[in-house]
Amino acid sequence: MEFDPFALGCPSRQVLDRVGDRWTVLIVLSLRDGTLRFTQVHDRVQGISDKVLSGLLRAMVRDGLLTRTQQPGIPPRVDYALTPLGQDLAATVDRLDRWAREHAAQVLRARDAFDSAS
Amino acid sequence: MEFDPFALGCPSRQVLDRVGDRWTVLIVLSLRDGTLRFTQVHDRVQGISDKVLSGLLRAMVRDGLLTRTQQPGIPPRVDYALTPLGQDLAATVDRLDRWAREHAAQVLRARDAFDSAS
Repeated sequence: MEFDPFALGCPSRQVLDRVGDRWTVLIVLSLRDGTLRFTQVHDRVQGISDKVLSGLLRAMVRDGLLTRTQQPGIPPRVDYALTPLGQDLAATVDRLDRWAREHAAQVLRARDAFDSAS
Repeated sequence: MEFDPFALGCPSRQVLDRVGDRWTVLIVLSLRDGTLRFTQVHDRVQGISDKVLSGLLRAMVRDGLLTRTQQPGIPPRVDYALTPLGQDLAATVDRLDRWAREHAAQVLRARDAFDSAS
């Protein structure tokens, strides 16, 4: 079976849609260095709403990228961590992160040039 | 100046939002092998609307990732191609594409396992 992410119905397209999502990228990156609680992911990924974060964390657990562990205690604590599959994705996504950091200045210059020409 | 894509106001966050967008990923991949007309990009990236594609192509030209060349003729033809910066991004995005193809089956199995357990 050959996967083709360009084809709408292909499972690899769904996977690419998941991993090529701006929030997913940041959530994966936030968990690169270890387990975090819900509120810690929320603090790290600035601008995400509780609702979007909850939905994505659930979808990523379902996709086998994250584990969700409820810790006993009052109030109960919920920890999220990357699975080996999620860690593998993190290594790939890490390159996007580095690309964005390394080329942000160049993109800004391109925008300025475009805006002053138009 | 230190860029931090987790920070809402940081330019690298805007860049990561751009490159970590499912449609941008597919548009960049569609142009990996050379220049395409608007309609060819549209055909390749299944499911994208004309309006979303137009907006993203314009934004990607502004970001310095693509060139837009109007060819003479009736009707006039508009060609899009990756700039060197866009090609550099394509090499990074290519790894996400490969990850999606190589791990699609594993993600599907994780989903099945999750759905039958819940």
